[in-house]
Amino acid sequence: MRPAPAQVGDPVGAIDSPALVVELDAFERNLAAMSAFARSHGVRLRPHAKTHKCSAIALQQVTRGAVGVCVQKVGEALALAAGGVRDVFVSNEVIAPNKLARLAALPSDVKLAIAVDSVVGIERLAAAIHASGRQIDVYVEIDAGQGRCGVPAAEAGALARQVVAHDGLRFAGLQAYHGGAQHLRSVAEREAAIRHAVAMATAARAAVTSLGIDCPLVTGAGSGSFLLEATSGVYGEIQPGSYVFMDADYARNAPLPEAPRFEHALFVRSQVIARHVAHAVVDAGHKSHAIDSGLPTVWGRNLEFRNGGDEHGLLHPRDGEPLPAMGDTVWLVPGHCDPTVNLYDWYVCVREGVVEALWPITARGAVL
Amino acid sequence: MRPAPAQVGDPVGAIDSPALVVELDAFERNLAAMSAFARSHGVRLRPHAKTHKCSAIALQQVTRGAVGVCVQKVGEALALAAGGVRDVFVSNEVIAPNKLARLAALPSDVKLAIAVDSVVGIERLAAAIHASGRQIDVYVEIDAGQGRCGVPAAEAGALARQVVAHDGLRFAGLQAYHGGAQHLRSVAEREAAIRHAVAMATAARAAVTSLGIDCPLVTGAGSGSFLLEATSGVYGEIQPGSYVFMDADYARNAPLPEAPRFEHALFVRSQVIARHVAHAVVDAGHKSHAIDSGLPTVWGRNLEFRNGGDEHGLLHPRDGEPLPAMGDTVWLVPGHCDPTVNLYDWYVCVREGVVEALWPITARGAVL
Repeated sequence: MRPAPAQVGDPVGAIDSPALVVELDAFERNLAAMSAFARSHGVRLRPHAKTHKCSAIALQQVTRGAVGVCVQKVGEALALAAGGVRDVFVSNEVIAPNKLARLAALPSDVKLAIAVDSVVGIERLAAAIHASGRQIDVYVEIDAGQGRCGVPAAEAGALARQVVAHDGLRFAGLQAYHGGAQHLRSVAEREAAIRHAVAMATAARAAVTSLGIDCPLVTGAGSGSFLLEATSGVYGEIQPGSYVFMDADYARNAPLPEAPRFEHALFVRSQVIARHVAHAVVDAGHKSHAIDSGLPTVWGRNLEFRNGGDEHGLLHPRDGEPLPAMGDTVWLVPGHCDPTVNLYDWYVCVREGVVEALWPITARGAVL
Repeated sequence: MRPAPAQVGDPVGAIDSPALVVELDAFERNLAAMSAFARSHGVRLRPHAKTHKCSAIALQQVTRGAVGVCVQKVGEALALAAGGVRDVFVSNEVIAPNKLARLAALPSDVKLAIAVDSVVGIERLAAAIHASGRQIDVYVEIDAGQGRCGVPAAEAGALARQVVAHDGLRFAGLQAYHGGAQHLRSVAEREAAIRHAVAMATAARAAVTSLGIDCPLVTGAGSGSFLLEATSGVYGEIQPGSYVFMDADYARNAPLPEAPRFEHALFVRSQVIARHVAHAVVDAGHKSHAIDSGLPTVWGRNLEFRNGGDEHGLLHPRDGEPLPAMGDTVWLVPGHCDPTVNLYDWYVCVREGVVEALWPITARGAVL
C-alpha cells in the first residue's frame, strides 16, 4: 500500500498531489438522499461497491439502511468481508473453480449471493458450495438490454430449474441490470431503455414462475435510472453505486424530474507544475483519473483539461480565464469515478477545509 | 498489496485471471536488442521505468549496460531506490517542496538527476538539495515539439545560468523528449518530428554554450523514435521505455527500417466467463487494461475485443473464427503498456509454459 497523501488534521492545502479527495458533507448528503429514496419507495437498497471499493464506505451505507452491497469480483467480496461487511452479492458471473472456492471459504456469517447465466457456472458454483457446506443465494442474470452477460428472458426458467436442483443453492430471483442505460443522456432514452429492461424482467419472471418456481426478487438499476426501476412494480431492489460520488459523465445526463439530486463529492487534487505562454500543466494524467468516460472537468474554474499523457494534464483557459499560477491547486472532477478510484490506495476525506479521515481503498486492484 | 495470481512453478493454465503476464524469452530478447543498439551506436541507455515500474526489471536493464533509469515521479524514484536501483533521473518537473525533500532524503549512494523548466522549480530544488547536503544533476527541459512541459530553446540558457548559480545543483545538460512523436504512424512523420526535436536541442545547446556554460549531454527519445535521436549527433543518451514489452499501439507504427525490432512480451491473461449467440465475454475490462491508446487486441485469434465496461470485454469473431468456449484462456495485448502495468501488483513471468518468477510492481500507483 502506498503512503497516504495527507494526515488527519492537515489543512486541505497540505494534501500532496495528485490525491483522491472526498468532500464529506456532499458525500453524506448523497448517502442520506439515496437511503431516503429507497425507504420512501419501498425498495431494498443494495449499493454497488464497485464504485467505492472501500469497506469503510460500505459499512456506512449499511448503517443507513442498505441491506448489503454488490460487488463485481470475488476479490472485492473478500476485501469487503475482511473489512466487516456481512452481506455481499457478487452481481457478476464467476466460473473459475479457484475463485468460487475462495468465495465459499468466506466466514459463515457473511451472507453471500452471486449471479449466474450458464449451466457450467451453476454446476461449478454448486460444487464449490457443496464442498463448503454453506448456502448461497443465486440470481439468474438476464440480458436486460446491455448485450453483455445474462440470458434471454425466455431462458431464465431453465436456469432457475438448474439452480433449485442443487443443495446449497437458493434461487433468489433475477439480476436485471442495464448498464448501458445509465449514461443515455435524455430522459426519454433512459425511460425507453428501462421500459425494455422491465419488460425483459417481467417475461423472465413469468418464465420462472410458469415452472412452479417462486421468484422472490428482481434486482438491478444504477445511479442514472434507479427511479425507473424502483417505480416499475417489478424490481424490489436497486443497486446504484456512483451516487455516492457522482462524476463528470453522470453530470452530463439530463436528470429524471422526480429523482433525488446528487452532488460531486469526489475530486482529484492536482497541482500546477509547469506554466507556459498559452497553457499550464498539472501533475494529473492517466495514472490519476480514468478516461473511459471522457477527460476530467476542472472544478470552479473556466479551464479546459486536455490529455497530457500518463502523468500530465494540460489546462487551457476559456473566455479570458487567467492561467493558474505555478503551484496552484486545481480540483478535477473525474469523468468516471469507479475506475478512477481503482488507481488510488487512499481516500483523503475532508470537511470544511480540514482532513478528517483517511480511508484505505481496500478493494483497489481486486481484479481476481 | 494484492495476492499474486499464480505461484512459481505453476503451469500457465493455472494462472488466475485477469493477470499481467511477461513472456520472459521475448522480454529478454527485447532487453538484449536495445542494449546492443545503444552500445553499437555509442549512446548511453537510460531506459524509462515509467513503463515497467519495477525494480527487478530496472536492475536487469542496468546489468545489461544501462547507466540507470528514468522515472516521472518522486514516488517512483523512492520505490526503485528501495529496490536497489542506484542511478535515477526524474525526467519531469517537480515543484512541491515536500516531494523535493523526499527525493533529497534518498540514501547518498543513489545518484540523482531531475528536470526543470522554471525558476521556481530551480529555487525550490536548490533549497531542498541545500538542506540535504547532497548533489543532484539538473537537466533543463526544452519543448522539443510536444507542447507539454519544457521551455523554448532560446530560454534554455537563462535557466542553465540559474542552475549553475546554486551550490549542489550540477547543470548536466538538456532534457529534450518528444512524446507525441513516438506514436506517429509513418516513418516520414516521425522523422520530421525528430528533425524538429534535434533542431530545438541544437538551438538550446547553443543558447547554453553561448553563455560560457558547458552542456555535457542531451537526453531524450522513446521506443518509437530512438534510432533517430541516437544517430542525430546531438543526443548522447536515449530513454526508451516501452521496448521491454511493446504494446498494441506501438505495433501500429511503421517500423524505422534500420531500428531493431521488439516483440510483444506483455499480455493480459483473461478468461471467458459468459458466452452467448454472437459473442463471448471475458473477465477483463477497464480495470485490467488502459484504453488511452485504444482497446487491447486478441493474441493469436481472429477476435475483435469490444468495450464491456470496467470488468468485462466482449469478443466478436471475425471471418468465421469460432467463438471461444466457456473458461477458455484469451490472451490480450494491451493498447498501452505503461498505464496497464499501473493496474496490477504483480508480473507473472513465464517461460515455456511455466511460471518462473513473480515480480512485484514496486512503483504501482506511485503518483506522488
